[in-house]
Amino acid sequence: MPNLSQKALSMPASPIRKLVPFAEKAKSQGKTVIHLNIGQPDIETPEVAREAIRNTELKVLEYSHSAGFETYRKGLSEYYKKFDIDVNHEQIIVTTGGSEALSFGLQSCLNPGDEIIIPEPFYANYNGFAVSAGLKVIPVTATIEDGFALPPIEEFEKRISSKTKAIMICNPANPTGYLYTQEEMQKLAELVKKHDLFLFADEVYREFCYDGATPFSVMNLKSIEENVVLVDSVSKRYSMCGARIGALITKNQEVLDAVMKFAQARLSPPTYAQVAAEAALQTPQSYFDQVQAEYVERRNIMVNGLNEIEGVRCPMPRGAFYCVAEFPVDDTEKFCQWLLEDFEHKGKTVMMAPLSGFYATPGLGKKEARIAYVLEKEHLHDALECLEEALKVYPGVIK
Amino acid sequence: MPNLSQKALSMPASPIRKLVPFAEKAKSQGKTVIHLNIGQPDIETPEVAREAIRNTELKVLEYSHSAGFETYRKGLSEYYKKFDIDVNHEQIIVTTGGSEALSFGLQSCLNPGDEIIIPEPFYANYNGFAVSAGLKVIPVTATIEDGFALPPIEEFEKRISSKTKAIMICNPANPTGYLYTQEEMQKLAELVKKHDLFLFADEVYREFCYDGATPFSVMNLKSIEENVVLVDSVSKRYSMCGARIGALITKNQEVLDAVMKFAQARLSPPTYAQVAAEAALQTPQSYFDQVQAEYVERRNIMVNGLNEIEGVRCPMPRGAFYCVAEFPVDDTEKFCQWLLEDFEHKGKTVMMAPLSGFYATPGLGKKEARIAYVLEKEHLHDALECLEEALKVYPGVIK
Repeated sequence: MPNLSQKALSMPASPIRKLVPFAEKAKSQGKTVIHLNIGQPDIETPEVAREAIRNTELKVLEYSHSAGFETYRKGLSEYYKKFDIDVNHEQIIVTTGGSEALSFGLQSCLNPGDEIIIPEPFYANYNGFAVSAGLKVIPVTATIEDGFALPPIEEFEKRISSKTKAIMICNPANPTGYLYTQEEMQKLAELVKKHDLFLFADEVYREFCYDGATPFSVMNLKSIEENVVLVDSVSKRYSMCGARIGALITKNQEVLDAVMKFAQARLSPPTYAQVAAEAALQTPQSYFDQVQAEYVERRNIMVNGLNEIEGVRCPMPRGAFYCVAEFPVDDTEKFCQWLLEDFEHKGKTVMMAPLSGFYATPGLGKKEARIAYVLEKEHLHDALECLEEALKVYPGVIK
Repeated sequence: MPNLSQKALSMPASPIRKLVPFAEKAKSQGKTVIHLNIGQPDIETPEVAREAIRNTELKVLEYSHSAGFETYRKGLSEYYKKFDIDVNHEQIIVTTGGSEALSFGLQSCLNPGDEIIIPEPFYANYNGFAVSAGLKVIPVTATIEDGFALPPIEEFEKRISSKTKAIMICNPANPTGYLYTQEEMQKLAELVKKHDLFLFADEVYREFCYDGATPFSVMNLKSIEENVVLVDSVSKRYSMCGARIGALITKNQEVLDAVMKFAQARLSPPTYAQVAAEAALQTPQSYFDQVQAEYVERRNIMVNGLNEIEGVRCPMPRGAFYCVAEFPVDDTEKFCQWLLEDFEHKGKTVMMAPLSGFYATPGLGKKEARIAYVLEKEHLHDALECLEEALKVYPGVIK
């Protein structure tokens, strides 16, 4: 048989892929596995979206416009106004999830061999899109000591070479939950302007900001309007991960034209899901208020609970629904596997995502894991109890 | 602002993109435009699929498995048995349309710079996926004189170089409607085996075979099982173009493993659409019988009608719902634009897809256009009348 491509060999597997068989085995042995490893909320999708699907009268499930329903894009333009983001519907291309927006955006703006600077730890799938586009990811390390704040801007600047074409951030961030301040964003903007780079921002957790914090969008950075590409998605906002509806937004007409060619080649984003996403624009504010209150409680339980366990530390995040905790262990890849394979407490155990897969720098993240606090509070309490007990008996614990 | 990528500049626009503004203008002037230019059937999506969507009880629209619902893949495995295609559900990866299957398959198997041989004319979007994957398309020209049959196998062999990694076919073919015979397929298989290439086959029009013809799948070519990658889609089969559900199917485990990494990076195919596609597996045979009878009638009206117009020729296709006609004109790009801009007959005109965008060889297809006979018969009659009248007055007609 013929050989596979180099890309196929370089594509990273998911950071939790190695753990999946152990989770399955644990379940088959009757253990309850508390899944803190994936950002799939248990929150209900808004009724208004589900109702729209139940009432769908489409007789022919047709292609939509390659940029998505015009009515939906106009609705999105209104939605963004609530966040003081001023874009018209022609500056929005609806995509199949934020993933496709990222893929089209990177391919339109960067050549194979180009470099993109990303603060690490970062959403592990960025690696996959980078490999697919033939890009080199240049990490700048954020640290748990600083609560995963933006690393000093000089660290970014040091890494800029003739091949650097873009910087990418996620805000609020997956996996750290860190919310960039306006000041941090401004520093990034100056750097982007100085070196004429693209600035990609994944802002899919916009609705998940806590303690009175408000998100500051890249779309509101003055004087770099042509450099900014915003990646968005309905997945988290409306707990509609399975819809696969995202958007690429930019004021750069050349980028829009290029992305449209990629969009036309794949014909259209999914139609049913657009019906649901358009209806979801009518989700009442009370839904978000409730969800936010729920996540704040969950976050407080999880983060405070983690910090109470001896040897564990976890910065309090102000956004998204993840936190990164440091454990007093040899290697979280081993610890997470051991939790599934060799541990149980009252019939339960915990699955977390080891953080090394979220770093591009080899060797980092070995004591850290990402925890998605997307489950009901009682499960979070159980998970904390499991972790506390586990650390008493895990053979690789480091005092 | 920073420069765009080379890919962005090389991405081909849709072959009809230039015509779209003229079609819009014609409509705004009150003309009825009969759309023969796009493969969007007017056939209703099966009731069983639409009902499944109306009855969806999902409270949380979750991600599915990255390879798609296991129940759906098992159902697909049963579906293929009806076509004597023997694959199990673990050899099927559900994708976001056939487009994504193609994109993942090409990226997994071919390196940037590799060559893929494709008989032309071919589905124009293959160019987009080739550009995106950095591939060079090497065309082998099929001719209208031969009814767009497979070009002589020596023509393929002549084009094989050290960079050739794959051959791709569409069967039954878009845009020609040609259905490859088992003998033609066998010749391809021998070539593929001899040079150890991948063979990609887009078989999304499997259900649309006429005059008693049965499709012969690449999956049934003996001794090249590891070389074959099948691209499928529900878009045409169930008139569900907007679902965006396809599949990549292969018995090559290494390819499956590689494609899964791309699939995991984009998380999952759309959930609602999978619900519809899985339900559509229960579509009764009577639906396909009716659809096929309808398309045979439409095809006969269109192809016979075209051949009756002086100077026009159009081979009778045995599959899909397209035909390619040759017109006695200077250039079908000009003719198609003129039809929209300067012509009307009883308030109507016709939009067709000029064929030059379906050829990789520059200069070919200038007298040809693709016609999708996906409309009701009365519209097809009107279209034929328009074309006949148009050719009497078109300034670029060549006697």
